[in-house]
Amino acid sequence: MFDLTATGPEIDKAVYKEKLATLREALLDAQYELQHKKSFPVVIIVSGVNGAGKSDVVKALNTWMDPRHIQSHALGKSTQEELERPAMWKFWRCLPRKGAIAIFFGSWYSYPMRQHIKGAKDQAYLDEYLDDFMRFEQMLCDEGALILKFWLHRSKDNLKARFTDLESHPNTKWQVSRQNWKDLNTYDNMLPVAKHVLEKTSTEQAPWIVVSAQNKYTRDLTVGKTLLDALHNRLNKNQPQPTAPLPFPIAQNFDPNNLLKALDLSQSLDKKAYKKQLAKYQKRLHRLVHKKAFRNKSMVIVFEGNDAAGKGGTIRRVTESLDPRLYEIVPICAPNDEERAQPYLWRFWRKLPRQGHTTIFDRSWYGRVLVERVEGLLPEKNWRRGYGEINDFERTMNLHGVIVFKFWLAISPDEQLTRFKDREATGYKRFKLTDEDWRNRSLHEGYVQAVCDMVDETSTQQVPWTLIEANSKYFARIKVLKTICKRLKAELK
Amino acid sequence: MFDLTATGPEIDKAVYKEKLATLREALLDAQYELQHKKSFPVVIIVSGVNGAGKSDVVKALNTWMDPRHIQSHALGKSTQEELERPAMWKFWRCLPRKGAIAIFFGSWYSYPMRQHIKGAKDQAYLDEYLDDFMRFEQMLCDEGALILKFWLHRSKDNLKARFTDLESHPNTKWQVSRQNWKDLNTYDNMLPVAKHVLEKTSTEQAPWIVVSAQNKYTRDLTVGKTLLDALHNRLNKNQPQPTAPLPFPIAQNFDPNNLLKALDLSQSLDKKAYKKQLAKYQKRLHRLVHKKAFRNKSMVIVFEGNDAAGKGGTIRRVTESLDPRLYEIVPICAPNDEERAQPYLWRFWRKLPRQGHTTIFDRSWYGRVLVERVEGLLPEKNWRRGYGEINDFERTMNLHGVIVFKFWLAISPDEQLTRFKDREATGYKRFKLTDEDWRNRSLHEGYVQAVCDMVDETSTQQVPWTLIEANSKYFARIKVLKTICKRLKAELK
Repeated sequence: MFDLTATGPEIDKAVYKEKLATLREALLDAQYELQHKKSFPVVIIVSGVNGAGKSDVVKALNTWMDPRHIQSHALGKSTQEELERPAMWKFWRCLPRKGAIAIFFGSWYSYPMRQHIKGAKDQAYLDEYLDDFMRFEQMLCDEGALILKFWLHRSKDNLKARFTDLESHPNTKWQVSRQNWKDLNTYDNMLPVAKHVLEKTSTEQAPWIVVSAQNKYTRDLTVGKTLLDALHNRLNKNQPQPTAPLPFPIAQNFDPNNLLKALDLSQSLDKKAYKKQLAKYQKRLHRLVHKKAFRNKSMVIVFEGNDAAGKGGTIRRVTESLDPRLYEIVPICAPNDEERAQPYLWRFWRKLPRQGHTTIFDRSWYGRVLVERVEGLLPEKNWRRGYGEINDFERTMNLHGVIVFKFWLAISPDEQLTRFKDREATGYKRFKLTDEDWRNRSLHEGYVQAVCDMVDETSTQQVPWTLIEANSKYFARIKVLKTICKRLKAELK
Repeated sequence: MFDLTATGPEIDKAVYKEKLATLREALLDAQYELQHKKSFPVVIIVSGVNGAGKSDVVKALNTWMDPRHIQSHALGKSTQEELERPAMWKFWRCLPRKGAIAIFFGSWYSYPMRQHIKGAKDQAYLDEYLDDFMRFEQMLCDEGALILKFWLHRSKDNLKARFTDLESHPNTKWQVSRQNWKDLNTYDNMLPVAKHVLEKTSTEQAPWIVVSAQNKYTRDLTVGKTLLDALHNRLNKNQPQPTAPLPFPIAQNFDPNNLLKALDLSQSLDKKAYKKQLAKYQKRLHRLVHKKAFRNKSMVIVFEGNDAAGKGGTIRRVTESLDPRLYEIVPICAPNDEERAQPYLWRFWRKLPRQGHTTIFDRSWYGRVLVERVEGLLPEKNWRRGYGEINDFERTMNLHGVIVFKFWLAISPDEQLTRFKDREATGYKRFKLTDEDWRNRSLHEGYVQAVCDMVDETSTQQVPWTLIEANSKYFARIKVLKTICKRLKAELK
């Protein structure tokens, strides 16, 4: 599929200069349009054979276009802050906002490729990464990103000749490092790995473009021209008009005996038993998070539930067991400017806890398949793909040692009405109801279906949902605490 | 001034419980109001004698109020990412947004106090820090923050008795650590240092509140009550109506022979000389930033100037010498949501480069004393304090080894008109003029005065302004490159 032996046409400096003048003006105009429309982000990967001139290409792009709206990221050795989060965290940190361009040297591919080339890891290991990368890139594309992946190629002989040539002149000798020669020695190992990666991960939406780098003029012009065409293509495409999709209709055949209806909401706990158990489980949780084994782990707790289901009160009972230095609660409301210019998962990634820390999300990424679905804020295909993306996200956390809990606090419509009325009656401003609360209530049936689908699609063995019968606040709080303690105990063994 | 021997009234559990119920409701309501008005951030420092129960106090605050809008920060050992920036960077990272509360354990005071207490550093060293902290806190207050600094106190005898008591029971023995006894040994060294810090840095706007911690009920209630009063006080204060202040009038006696008028804008360079010198200085700059000595430094370059003065083109000539992996260009336009909820310097702090890296600001924090002043977006006292705050900011960078350059690119009104007309004539969208460009032009005289004042107030020996005669683009670019090379050479010796 990918021919890594073909070479591009040799062009000379004069032709290059002539073509470049036009290309450059066009690139600048396209970049300006991109930046002003702010309709999508551009991710460029510059990878390839060592010695093929990745730096030169990135430099050219920065020189030709307006470097104020380009960020170039090498991301070599991870910092401690990065090591304490899942590996993709450091890339999420530097994703470009809509309207900007980010160039990644090597990118996420570098590390697992290098491990496999040097023989430290087998192909199954590499393939697992590649699957993740493809899903990651698919998600970026679905969220609107334009992705271009360049593989700069030179043959072994060509590289060897070049290094020898450079070394033979005192003025250019310094350009060749010992690493260059080392890389040449592993060239034959590298080649099939590169072919494999290119073939496996080149998709229509995020294609690999092999660029012959034996002639630098051809190389740079090819990259520039490819980028320009891709930009034009996207900029001229009729953007889908953002018409508000209709709320997803309740399925006619929706099971009336669904899992929410099956919950026994009458379960309760009297005050005395509650106080006793609260003290017991809070003490246990306190002991668990102070275990040495927790220092290499971290914890993410998601609270979702009906309005007035008692999320706030439950969260407080959990945090009472935690050291305030070691947790953060993130209440999720409408995204801000910066968050809107990124894929929807971005604002959750940025809040992932360091080792030994806990992040509690009061509402979460599940908004995608709950409120956004039920209110009809997204076309169906967008929230539908949310399930897979969310599973990937949680799986990534789980593999990194993040212990993830997901609680759905369920109350009956009657109980909700009682609580709403109580709130109306109280003098405390903080309990004031908004029109939205009442409106959400009217969408009850839609939420029932959305919650059932959500649990079906995203409750996995590693990261299961726990449904909490919350008509009794006491019962709910104890069940949450118990669930956390039980799982933590197992994980910290 | 501060009496560190007095003890608070002993209250018992029953009184505590009774008082707490009222206090807690009031705190929750105040917090709710704060969070909804989003009018100011709250910074709480919890410091004091080791063993006085800082954690317990922070925990109490988190339990009494809604912990979803409180962040607690311990900030012990700095991470590598933090060490590579000025020491205050890690605190800037976790400043609360308007409407939120951040609690700092010990805070910025901890490190220099500890150094002085253990005898590693003298009082002059400590006092230098204290001066910085006071200016920092003053700035936070001027930007609207409510700051409360609690010092939790216990006498040496009281601590000793408590530790002995705890150790005598098998159930509580674990609560006393070896560090507690060690700290008790240095208590007599600590006491005068604490007194000194409290006396020196307690201001009307950011007062220290000494709280007797010998009785835990008194301690917690005092902290809670003080916080409540401070919140009420601020929330009920009539917020100054945000009427647009008038543009600052041009001083009648403004010197017509000011430093901008004194520039010889006729200086130029022909194309041939330009090309030669460009190659020379770009090469030199490239060599300088690749020196080993630069790896422990970083560079910040600020570009300000008249519209159409050629900032973009000049920036590109600088970045052509830099490795794209090692610089970032930050174009400054209107702040986003997140930035607006913070002190105005926040968005520049968050962009400070790591070691070996460069950040180029295309427009900068000087917007405070340029556009915001000239357009009348701020009351005079606000932009006036900007000078001192900016000097502090740049001094902090300088002390940390950040090499800071500031360029003002000056063109004459005639030259600007020519460039505007050229832009109107070109077909390139990216050069399209906006109404604002024309309007800014009409404010020319205001800018002249603002620039002269800015240079007077903020050109320091360590971080000087360089005025660039930019009627000739060639001349301007070379002068900028030359200035950078010369200073870098001196700094990297």
